[in-house]
Amino acid sequence: MPAALNRRIVLARRPEGEPTPDDFRLETGPAPEPGEGEVLLRTLWLSLDPYMRGRMSAAKSYAKPVEIGGTMEGGTVCEVAASRNDRFRPGDVVLAHAGWQEWAVSDGRGLRQLDPAAAPVQTALGILGMPGMTAYTGLANIGQPKPGETLVVAAATGPVGSAVGQIAKLKGCRAVGIAGGPDKCRALLDEFGFDAAVDHRAPDLAERLAEACPNGIDVYFENVGGPVWSAVFPLLNDFARVPVCGRIAHYNDTALPAGPDRTPQLFGAVLTKRLRIQGFIVWDFAAQAKEFQTEMAGWIRDGRVRYREDVVEGLENAPEAFMGLLKGHNFGKLLVKVG
Amino acid sequence: MPAALNRRIVLARRPEGEPTPDDFRLETGPAPEPGEGEVLLRTLWLSLDPYMRGRMSAAKSYAKPVEIGGTMEGGTVCEVAASRNDRFRPGDVVLAHAGWQEWAVSDGRGLRQLDPAAAPVQTALGILGMPGMTAYTGLANIGQPKPGETLVVAAATGPVGSAVGQIAKLKGCRAVGIAGGPDKCRALLDEFGFDAAVDHRAPDLAERLAEACPNGIDVYFENVGGPVWSAVFPLLNDFARVPVCGRIAHYNDTALPAGPDRTPQLFGAVLTKRLRIQGFIVWDFAAQAKEFQTEMAGWIRDGRVRYREDVVEGLENAPEAFMGLLKGHNFGKLLVKVG
Repeated sequence: MPAALNRRIVLARRPEGEPTPDDFRLETGPAPEPGEGEVLLRTLWLSLDPYMRGRMSAAKSYAKPVEIGGTMEGGTVCEVAASRNDRFRPGDVVLAHAGWQEWAVSDGRGLRQLDPAAAPVQTALGILGMPGMTAYTGLANIGQPKPGETLVVAAATGPVGSAVGQIAKLKGCRAVGIAGGPDKCRALLDEFGFDAAVDHRAPDLAERLAEACPNGIDVYFENVGGPVWSAVFPLLNDFARVPVCGRIAHYNDTALPAGPDRTPQLFGAVLTKRLRIQGFIVWDFAAQAKEFQTEMAGWIRDGRVRYREDVVEGLENAPEAFMGLLKGHNFGKLLVKVG
Repeated sequence: MPAALNRRIVLARRPEGEPTPDDFRLETGPAPEPGEGEVLLRTLWLSLDPYMRGRMSAAKSYAKPVEIGGTMEGGTVCEVAASRNDRFRPGDVVLAHAGWQEWAVSDGRGLRQLDPAAAPVQTALGILGMPGMTAYTGLANIGQPKPGETLVVAAATGPVGSAVGQIAKLKGCRAVGIAGGPDKCRALLDEFGFDAAVDHRAPDLAERLAEACPNGIDVYFENVGGPVWSAVFPLLNDFARVPVCGRIAHYNDTALPAGPDRTPQLFGAVLTKRLRIQGFIVWDFAAQAKEFQTEMAGWIRDGRVRYREDVVEGLENAPEAFMGLLKGHNFGKLLVKVG
């Protein structure tokens, strides 16, 4: 049986704008014990993802916020440490949603068995998990990239962006990635095979993006908003598709930006260019999980899709790593190695 | 052979904001003569439609602007007055795009024979023509109304809006129409069978619309923009669809409205509610013309879809009628009886 203590990160208060260390609190308490039909889970890996900023706010969204004092939510890869459930045995490794903590119990619902021989288990939190499936389903259902088209994605070395660009390449598109700094831009070209990379820190971002997209933009996979959107908007071609899966530049907003109100301009372009702008979250396409896993696993096996991980050691470092994620400090899929 | 004179309305200058009488000019000149393979067309009916405001501006859009001094563009129903084309005989009635003039020649391309016995010929400019097909294809391809859902459309006694609402009813939706003034609102309920009508002139438009949509809005067919959009926006349900076919409230805009910039708010809702906002023009779905005509003609024959016409006599009155259209003065499909 496990250590008697569980460390967890709780939401100490709701952030005003950018989260600060005081918004989180590390608590130590007794580890939970599995009841009849339950398993005890030891967290191996915790995934840190931008959506978690939304859970810290009370604002209405597609999921309920974390309560003050509640354990921060998050996807995890866990080892079954003890089992009182017939479906699981000690030593099994499972995909779970145990949150920012070392130990958890589960009745088994929503757990998915992982095969450590098939792929590194933490990829179930990245390229073979939620971020990879976000890229895959957003493109398949909304972006619909076609051969010869130009696709743009920002946060392009991140787990979603790098998958988006690589899938677009597999579909015959010109893939243009936007990332912060020369190292990430180099990785886009050398590691992920993008056709062009644009540094969003460049003061002339709009001009550089225009140069990188001589035939305009047919698919813009929106995960950042802000100045990147402003640079993309005038380049959108007729019938361009904009799957919207994130807006990380705005997650810390406390007020709307100054005017003028550009909404009518946006609708004007939607009409005259016949744009399709559509939001989604990956679970809207849960029925496509099997198809995604099969196809993506094949691409990885064949070396046609690559992924990059940014690993932080120790649960206690999760808040700092998460705050850095919101500023683009990570380089690849951000994971906390917990156990 | 016809009268030797042709009266036509030309674009005298590009409007600044709202068009004024001085932006148009009535010119009289010799009627054109058909060459080999051409037909001479006498205009019977001229259609006036909001999109024409776009053609008066030099701004880039999905179609080229009318040149200064050029004949105003427009759909027409014409009689073949003389023919040097084997496909047409004098007396044939055709759907054409002859513009704001009494006489025109055509090589026959784009003309469609009409059967005066099947339906009043001017319906080819309304319920059985571009406006009706705009409603039909925007709903079929983007709006996708489902039984039990709530649909909202503005300019709802107009040729597009009234068709949108009636089709939505045929699909099992609750149809809520927005129109200007008590007479139009009454017509929505009594004539077109909407479930609720809201007067956009009401100072408490947002509250009244909310009352009319107790289960929120699943489809908003956008043809106006402005304050109606502002009232609709907070009521949109998860997975709502917004086909965008017009923005009449903005066609005379000369500057963007004051701030704050609400674009991030819009994208926030697109993401959390997974909205689909998509522009279209009817010709994007030209391949569906036959299906539309067959189905809509059946609905009209069965009395399941009704239409209303607002007829102005005389080409010389077209500019004033068009200026009134942009202010919502028409009540039904606006037609000029020319010949």
